[in-house]
Amino acid sequence: MYERIKGFRDFYPAEMQARRQVFDEVESTVRGYGFREIGTPAMEDAQLYIDKSGEEIVDELYSFEDKGGRHVALTPELTPTVARMVVAKQQELSKPIKWFSTRPFWRYEEPQQGRFREFYQTNVDIFGSSDPSADAEILAVAADMLTNLGLDAEDFEFRVSHRDILGGLLDAFGGDIATQQAIRAVDKSAKIETAEYHDLLVDAGLDYEQARTFDELLAVDEDELDELVEFAGTDRIHEAVTNLQNVLAAAEDFGVREFCDLSLETARGLDYYTGVVFECFDSTGEVSRAVFGGGRYDDLIESFGGQPTPAVGFAPGDATLSLLLQRAGVWPDEELSTDYYVLQVGDTRPVAARIARDLREGGHVVETDVSDRSFGAQMNYADSINAETVVIVGERDLENDEVTLKDMASGDQVQAPVGEFPGEHDRPTIEQFE
Amino acid sequence: MYERIKGFRDFYPAEMQARRQVFDEVESTVRGYGFREIGTPAMEDAQLYIDKSGEEIVDELYSFEDKGGRHVALTPELTPTVARMVVAKQQELSKPIKWFSTRPFWRYEEPQQGRFREFYQTNVDIFGSSDPSADAEILAVAADMLTNLGLDAEDFEFRVSHRDILGGLLDAFGGDIATQQAIRAVDKSAKIETAEYHDLLVDAGLDYEQARTFDELLAVDEDELDELVEFAGTDRIHEAVTNLQNVLAAAEDFGVREFCDLSLETARGLDYYTGVVFECFDSTGEVSRAVFGGGRYDDLIESFGGQPTPAVGFAPGDATLSLLLQRAGVWPDEELSTDYYVLQVGDTRPVAARIARDLREGGHVVETDVSDRSFGAQMNYADSINAETVVIVGERDLENDEVTLKDMASGDQVQAPVGEFPGEHDRPTIEQFE
Repeated sequence: MYERIKGFRDFYPAEMQARRQVFDEVESTVRGYGFREIGTPAMEDAQLYIDKSGEEIVDELYSFEDKGGRHVALTPELTPTVARMVVAKQQELSKPIKWFSTRPFWRYEEPQQGRFREFYQTNVDIFGSSDPSADAEILAVAADMLTNLGLDAEDFEFRVSHRDILGGLLDAFGGDIATQQAIRAVDKSAKIETAEYHDLLVDAGLDYEQARTFDELLAVDEDELDELVEFAGTDRIHEAVTNLQNVLAAAEDFGVREFCDLSLETARGLDYYTGVVFECFDSTGEVSRAVFGGGRYDDLIESFGGQPTPAVGFAPGDATLSLLLQRAGVWPDEELSTDYYVLQVGDTRPVAARIARDLREGGHVVETDVSDRSFGAQMNYADSINAETVVIVGERDLENDEVTLKDMASGDQVQAPVGEFPGEHDRPTIEQFE
Repeated sequence: MYERIKGFRDFYPAEMQARRQVFDEVESTVRGYGFREIGTPAMEDAQLYIDKSGEEIVDELYSFEDKGGRHVALTPELTPTVARMVVAKQQELSKPIKWFSTRPFWRYEEPQQGRFREFYQTNVDIFGSSDPSADAEILAVAADMLTNLGLDAEDFEFRVSHRDILGGLLDAFGGDIATQQAIRAVDKSAKIETAEYHDLLVDAGLDYEQARTFDELLAVDEDELDELVEFAGTDRIHEAVTNLQNVLAAAEDFGVREFCDLSLETARGLDYYTGVVFECFDSTGEVSRAVFGGGRYDDLIESFGGQPTPAVGFAPGDATLSLLLQRAGVWPDEELSTDYYVLQVGDTRPVAARIARDLREGGHVVETDVSDRSFGAQMNYADSINAETVVIVGERDLENDEVTLKDMASGDQVQAPVGEFPGEHDRPTIEQFE
């Protein structure tokens, strides 16, 4: 027997049906905002990630040499691919470019709860607008997605931060500070002890007192943001704080302000973010890691050889999202559903097939016997697929030009004239033939 | 600048929208028959293919050693994976098992028209029924899929053959014949010269006279099938011919007989087929290769260590299917569609956002300004995304508690009371406010 590879998953129909419902709801929300679906390859030149992704991602890359001697990698994230696609057609694409896609990605990580080597993400991005409305639209579509899935403000929160506030504060300390390294320390701060966190900041070039001050500054409330401007006294911090405030004001207009909390300690792991960043958390804390995140990355397209093009996006992943939905009790039922089973008794296939066909044309899910089985075996099968109604096409009934409808929930049965079934009924049930 | 890898494709929104419409129609047809979606990994133990797939597929495998020293391969086809999944849960799955999925596969082939290194397939399979109705249901769902996509009997044909008729005839010649090798020769026969075809049959163990006889036998019409039984005089051929006739009779009951032509010269390339096989062809011949194919493979599950489990399925691929749909003029328009663009003039974002939100709740695709742009720039953008209706939210209109609706096709405009827009209208248009 062959084994599935560690960290990869098989999805059988009942679970897949629940997943499909969730993916559909996510995509329908995103489409409502005018994001357009794109299709992207599973493989890219490995150099793309070596040059552009953080070290952590490169360490986890599934990369190899293909039969043509190319050094290729399975895509560990979508952003470098969409950046490549934007650059390739930059002139002809009208701005803002609003794209999404749902697909698998691959990272060689240690599998654990909510983390797999093959995982699915819906990537949602806006290219070509630096306006705070674009950041807020990303927050809005992310929040709508979650509320459409059945969550409310008690269930989740967006911890909103700003890379340029972090960078600007670090800058204000003067001296030779490795900004990205310090920001990565901030990203880890919630998961490690304060002393270790301060050590990491010191490794990045702060001294211990500066590390403590920095830590305190990041704890400010929303109405104390001016203290940061005062502390640093730079245009950069002033602009970054104003930008953050404008994004939150736009989120207010978009009706999703209630889901957003200021949290400068939130930094996001990836190096390419430049402005507002956010992470979605389970408000109850039961799902302990970030459910997903996103933010602004204005320099990436240019670094790919394109015209300077501001960008902002987010990307919910399947594994953590399902943990949150399960925790909140809104994960869809993992149960098959079937509208009709057309049961054949004796040599009635032509009539049964005609009825199945007519019901399918009405948009229903309809199964019929393809195994030449007994009445009892067919009934058991109809039960196993949760058929709502069984249409029994029997030789004797047909002599009277009738079929029998059986409601599987109540067990009630009625006869219906075969020539009038399903007839003009959108969804024929036993009530309509009583 | 980074290049896309050869044989891989990027799909931009307009093309992707057409592809999505086609995938949705395919999946909706398949779901109507009660096939259930499954989700499957992109990677398997490479040994699975080395043991189970034909030589050709193994030569084209994207395989490599992962960071844990596993010899893995990107899935070049789905059948081995679903076989593994059936075996893993054989006891608990109720039969027949009817599964489908749409996803990419990877083969290192030379790219050409209708062939890519990354391609998409919808795999549709029934496990657990050896009844001719199951084969016919596969033919029926395949035909319905194509007619639902807008094709008719003038556009396509299913060339139906039977592996056991081919095998049984070869057997009847006696001697030491390599059956799979001879069947692979039949599979190639349409693409090569007769002399070369006969040479291949001779390589497989026939003599030249037998090769000619075999060739003639395969050319029989449907009403001459008894001649094959007579020629061979074996139970095996008798049963195979009867099985084929029963499948065609069931296809008649299922309403798809008109799409099926007997064509014993059709063999399918893969080794694992055992019974009825078929290939879909463009009736005009403009698309010269098979569009897709399928058939019965009763021995595969057992060869994976499972209980003997009959199986039959088919798998349309995106590239050839789109060639056929384009040839027939039924490929969907590659054009974006947008229901509403909510245009902001002046500081009207709160009202514009409220209107956009209400329209989205009605299930519409709605964009609004996220770039702080001028009236003209917003109008151009609304035009570029084919917005049907533009809702102009202007400061002056709002002073009169009004918004302006503009029908983009006619250019007509009306005013609507802001408090009543969109109101209870399912799909508010300018007519409703005139």
